[in-house]
Amino acid sequence: MLVNLTIKEFLSKTAGSDPVPGGGSIAALNGAIASALAEMVANLTIGKKKYEDREEQMKQIAASANNHQMLFIQDIDADSDAYNKVFDAFKLPKETDEEKAERSKQIQAATKIAAEIPMEVARRAYAIMDLIAEVAEKGNQNAVTDACVSMMSARTAVLGAILNVKINLSSLKDEEYVAKMKAECDQLEKDAVAKEQALLEKVNKML
Amino acid sequence: MLVNLTIKEFLSKTAGSDPVPGGGSIAALNGAIASALAEMVANLTIGKKKYEDREEQMKQIAASANNHQMLFIQDIDADSDAYNKVFDAFKLPKETDEEKAERSKQIQAATKIAAEIPMEVARRAYAIMDLIAEVAEKGNQNAVTDACVSMMSARTAVLGAILNVKINLSSLKDEEYVAKMKAECDQLEKDAVAKEQALLEKVNKML
Repeated sequence: MLVNLTIKEFLSKTAGSDPVPGGGSIAALNGAIASALAEMVANLTIGKKKYEDREEQMKQIAASANNHQMLFIQDIDADSDAYNKVFDAFKLPKETDEEKAERSKQIQAATKIAAEIPMEVARRAYAIMDLIAEVAEKGNQNAVTDACVSMMSARTAVLGAILNVKINLSSLKDEEYVAKMKAECDQLEKDAVAKEQALLEKVNKML
Repeated sequence: MLVNLTIKEFLSKTAGSDPVPGGGSIAALNGAIASALAEMVANLTIGKKKYEDREEQMKQIAASANNHQMLFIQDIDADSDAYNKVFDAFKLPKETDEEKAERSKQIQAATKIAAEIPMEVARRAYAIMDLIAEVAEKGNQNAVTDACVSMMSARTAVLGAILNVKINLSSLKDEEYVAKMKAECDQLEKDAVAKEQALLEKVNKML
């Protein structure tokens, strides 16, 4: 798994001339980073006298963030694997009409999966934004800037994943599916940008 | 060094109840990620017949991005180390007036360094935004969304680092220094947001 590489190795692999891991895996990594920072803010709140009235709430946030982190970690690989499957489908034989039809079918199927995976990353990264906003507001205020960096990472996860959805949609023939996915992307994009902005504006006024 | 941890280990360490690595180190990590993705886009352009007229330009971008990545990697640790130094200064004895004065002096000095390090991250992350915009425009267009994710990562590096500068400035007594740094932060923040937005809008129209 890519997360078993050291950060240094992962960065080298990213920088190299192989298209994966690329923006899609980095979007998923941002989801994992956002989750980890949200969990940290909750952990920095738990056990503090000043915040003892919200101990249970923070424990729930920490557990939920940890769970999200594990899912995003899997997506780092899933995104790269899905790209490779599309690539493999393009290499299928295309001599006969039958081969051409089969190849086209396989490309369409693999591309659909390569759109679904970042779509799921975008949905989940958007979902954790509420959790981050909650921990930023109710958690240890000494760590409020960490919550902001968590929120920025979630924004990159949403917007970065959406770009990868859209680039895959552009080669899909199922128009109804494409239109439905595009509409969801546009909505998520707008909402994610607004959620991040709301928190950053609030915290910037405090600093 | 933190980059010698596996991604999984680094995420666990981030999520834990120690304040470092926190938002400051994650900002620096985003600078490294942005550099790695920019280098990848340049590498995906080098050697391609379609882009042979810009071979030299891409080699320069790849080399420069690689150099930036190495610097950001060091900053991941430097930011956490600087935080620990501030923490250590707070633990100095404060019985006598002499000890109190010395402790206060050490806290101020350590906090200034803890502001300088993310300031340098913000400056360098802003500097690579031009490089990213260049590789997005002139590099392999199949990788344009990767360039966008690189740009988002650079934005997080700038804005995340600035939050860490500001939080340290809030406990510094040198008013002239604080005012100068705040003005630089505000300008960088505005410019970084605009640079990212310009690229995302352009690419979103293409998709």
